[in-house]
Amino acid sequence: MKMLINVPETVVTDALRGMAAAHPELTVDVENRVIVRRDAPVAGKVALVSGGGSGHEPLHGGFVGPGMLSAACPGEVFTSPVPDQMVRAAAAVDSGAGVLFVVKNYTGDVLNFDMAAELAEDEGIQVAKVLVNDDVAVTDSLYTAGRRGTGGTLFVEKIAGAAADEGRPLEQVRSVAQQVNDRSRSFGVALGACTTPAKGSPTFDLPPGELELGVGIHGEPGRERRPMMTSGEIADFSVEAVLEDLDPRNPVLVLVNGMGATPLLELYGFNAEVQRVLAARGVAVARTLVGNYVTSLDMAGASVTLCEIDEELLRLWDAPVRTAGLRWGM
Amino acid sequence: MKMLINVPETVVTDALRGMAAAHPELTVDVENRVIVRRDAPVAGKVALVSGGGSGHEPLHGGFVGPGMLSAACPGEVFTSPVPDQMVRAAAAVDSGAGVLFVVKNYTGDVLNFDMAAELAEDEGIQVAKVLVNDDVAVTDSLYTAGRRGTGGTLFVEKIAGAAADEGRPLEQVRSVAQQVNDRSRSFGVALGACTTPAKGSPTFDLPPGELELGVGIHGEPGRERRPMMTSGEIADFSVEAVLEDLDPRNPVLVLVNGMGATPLLELYGFNAEVQRVLAARGVAVARTLVGNYVTSLDMAGASVTLCEIDEELLRLWDAPVRTAGLRWGM
Repeated sequence: MKMLINVPETVVTDALRGMAAAHPELTVDVENRVIVRRDAPVAGKVALVSGGGSGHEPLHGGFVGPGMLSAACPGEVFTSPVPDQMVRAAAAVDSGAGVLFVVKNYTGDVLNFDMAAELAEDEGIQVAKVLVNDDVAVTDSLYTAGRRGTGGTLFVEKIAGAAADEGRPLEQVRSVAQQVNDRSRSFGVALGACTTPAKGSPTFDLPPGELELGVGIHGEPGRERRPMMTSGEIADFSVEAVLEDLDPRNPVLVLVNGMGATPLLELYGFNAEVQRVLAARGVAVARTLVGNYVTSLDMAGASVTLCEIDEELLRLWDAPVRTAGLRWGM
Repeated sequence: MKMLINVPETVVTDALRGMAAAHPELTVDVENRVIVRRDAPVAGKVALVSGGGSGHEPLHGGFVGPGMLSAACPGEVFTSPVPDQMVRAAAAVDSGAGVLFVVKNYTGDVLNFDMAAELAEDEGIQVAKVLVNDDVAVTDSLYTAGRRGTGGTLFVEKIAGAAADEGRPLEQVRSVAQQVNDRSRSFGVALGACTTPAKGSPTFDLPPGELELGVGIHGEPGRERRPMMTSGEIADFSVEAVLEDLDPRNPVLVLVNGMGATPLLELYGFNAEVQRVLAARGVAVARTLVGNYVTSLDMAGASVTLCEIDEELLRLWDAPVRTAGLRWGM
């Protein structure tokens, strides 16, 4: 499998050097693998720190900036960052108002963020945590006890980031983040596997003519494999899977997210089918975002995330944000 | 080859339906295949219209909005739109100040935009044109006499869009667009072929372990094939190819553009190598943009575009823009 890399060992540090060059508004500590907004700490405001394995870009480093994350810690590809990164990040961004850790529910991330929270608190930093576990496909998985954290992470980081930006105290920011997670559900499908630099070959076998329904963002197995389906059939299956678990009586945010290798042309077409299913089910859509936001290297496929909102959460969603990967209003 | 589509025949209209649902700030005429900013025509201002084959998203439809294009006309995948689309677009956006057609140099696009210009002028619309031909890889190609138009299109559309937004007259907007094209050069590489919906199999054969140096955005052959190279070697080759043709004495804009299936993680790493080569050659970098902007469906690979700028062009580059694919300052 050909890749645009030097050697597998330097993929993450090479990417961080490239981010540093492209984004003068970020402070990128390449050696210690921490991406921080340049104006951090911001006086009087709660800071948000997230992180996780690399390979899901723009998540999380691409979501660092005003209105979203204060810092991100990239691990090796598909591997949790270490507590030292998280503590460094927390120390860099804490203004004294405390830090919220946004943690996707994978065993390694959970353990390492827990340890980092203890270490940061020992240094006098007030820490709160939110666990993102929005993926309805399976309970327990290759790297997870309980549900996996996937596309809902974007909603949590954006909306809690806006709450922090308004100057709310740590407990309120945590509460908003928790609320967004509780109201978010995702379901993903893979048409083709991804290849990690270290392995150099596809991480799982997906026979020609089949798709994986309910795939995880590291290629973890989903619910089942079926013969290839149309975009409309995939939308039916995915949205139904989400709505079995979330019965929204209020409008939703929709994220139609590409896994990496699926063209934007196809993602927009898929969005048309997702909207058709939602309309048929009487679900009102407040905002829709289509694109590659929570990716799995070069996996082909897509996921759907819905988040049931109210006026307050919508206002926070619409609030200005300025990051490499998501930007509006400033 | 599996795709997230219904049937090949509806790929473009499905995508337009999905764009309409996601972007209430656009008026999407699905039947006639024209994407227009909702507030068009904007009184007193020159309008920009572009278009081309689909499969390069977000180009061009994703660049419609304040500060960039007024309208875009998507053709079938890798196929020029027809004059009727362009005339409709021109009529929808012309405020009386005239319309600039931004045309990538492919034979079909050139002929159709020429014809559209005549028809629009018959309807009393003043039309100017700029031809984008920034790709240094080859002279004459599968669909082109002369050089192909690729990544430079983004620079032309953004900067000329800003000039139009300032209320400059048509001839000045055309002149800015021409200047940007004249100062822009691109070079692309493919690590893997793309697959069009209609064909359903890769559009060209690229043996395992080889890459195509100088590939076009439809998979057209480039300069040569070589055994796979590292990211650093590809940056050396690509930037040198550009600098053989452009000897910038002023700072440049850099676009490190993904062809579609190459992960953002790799694109950032590639950017680090591109910046290394530019620094070694003494080329000052004013701004860098990294991401999937001028794509080739699910092709794996990347391109480098440089545009030599001055203070005025930099100011126009930095001016606010609000589109689905490129957004800052508002």
